[in-house]
Amino acid sequence: MAPSGPEDPMDKRAPADHPIDDLVAARWSPYVFRDETLEAGVVASLLEAARWAPSSYNEQPWRFLVGRKGDAAWQGIHDCLVEPNQAWAQAAPVLMVSVASMRYARGDKPNAHAWHDVGLATGNLLAEATARGLLAHQMGGFFPDRLRERFGLPEHFEPCAAIAIGHRGDPATAAPELAAREQGPRTRRAVAEFAFGDSWGQPASLDA
Amino acid sequence: MAPSGPEDPMDKRAPADHPIDDLVAARWSPYVFRDETLEAGVVASLLEAARWAPSSYNEQPWRFLVGRKGDAAWQGIHDCLVEPNQAWAQAAPVLMVSVASMRYARGDKPNAHAWHDVGLATGNLLAEATARGLLAHQMGGFFPDRLRERFGLPEHFEPCAAIAIGHRGDPATAAPELAAREQGPRTRRAVAEFAFGDSWGQPASLDA
Repeated sequence: MAPSGPEDPMDKRAPADHPIDDLVAARWSPYVFRDETLEAGVVASLLEAARWAPSSYNEQPWRFLVGRKGDAAWQGIHDCLVEPNQAWAQAAPVLMVSVASMRYARGDKPNAHAWHDVGLATGNLLAEATARGLLAHQMGGFFPDRLRERFGLPEHFEPCAAIAIGHRGDPATAAPELAAREQGPRTRRAVAEFAFGDSWGQPASLDA
Repeated sequence: MAPSGPEDPMDKRAPADHPIDDLVAARWSPYVFRDETLEAGVVASLLEAARWAPSSYNEQPWRFLVGRKGDAAWQGIHDCLVEPNQAWAQAAPVLMVSVASMRYARGDKPNAHAWHDVGLATGNLLAEATARGLLAHQMGGFFPDRLRERFGLPEHFEPCAAIAIGHRGDPATAAPELAAREQGPRTRRAVAEFAFGDSWGQPASLDA
């Protein structure tokens, strides 16, 4: 077995301060994908996982554009990415775009939770991808107007994120600057910096 | 063993059309919690899971207010819920509020992905809760201004959702209308209704 642990730049498992489930720890966002079709049924299961997320009033404001390499949707999504993302996302066998419905179907009122709930659905999708040994990388770097026009998004829908999905690739086959980004350490602010107790900025007690 | 499957109203596992990981299928939002303290370390692990979510520019725009039943934060959150939520959330041993930072720390520019990324972090928290046999129920039904004042939220932060977390309770001990809601079927629109291919509204191919 290859060496693993924080010393191994290929081990991207989260260096967690508190124990977390493997499905959470193993998720990360690669820049290097293997140019290889996904197994049959995988895309259906990724979307099925998204389907069962919770949402405000069970509105399910998420929509997904789904492209597989070689089809017109994949090409259409790829055409709407900014150039630096086009370069590395080129290898991804699946490209998606998450989209938020900004109005509740009932009553046609604004849904302030739409983007939040798209995030929840995408979180489910990422968990399912991780369970299947796949990785995903979300991007804000795309042209929303171009995407809206290309796919015919109705007015009250907003594209949230482009998502590249596939198997991890070999950094040795990638451009040097991508390989370097790929192997950098994973960093997050500590729990005490974002979880507060009795007042803002006062760390929540984690002792119990 | 008790009967299970869609015929059993106590089995809330998602009736999925395509295979999904158990951690995704087993999550649902209860109205009936057991009034029982969580095991030591659980809250830390829930927040640790949230910590490792992806976010736009790794901004990590999520913050969480964290209360445990008996402490001032729990009471403060509970005081800010709308009355119908106060009633059932009363039993939950942990109450949280997810909060979004609406500006990037670097450059102080608006972060359009803030709520989305709070959703991703919360998705991780829910997965960790599920892995530990816990359930969570998010609520939009709270008074944001009251919460802002009580906890001293700075201006560019927005509360997203209140979250009750705990063990599943026995519907037989709950008010009849809650027990009825608790045992209703879980419903979602089909994947073909939210996953599109080459153009808006055209179902994505799920065959491959």
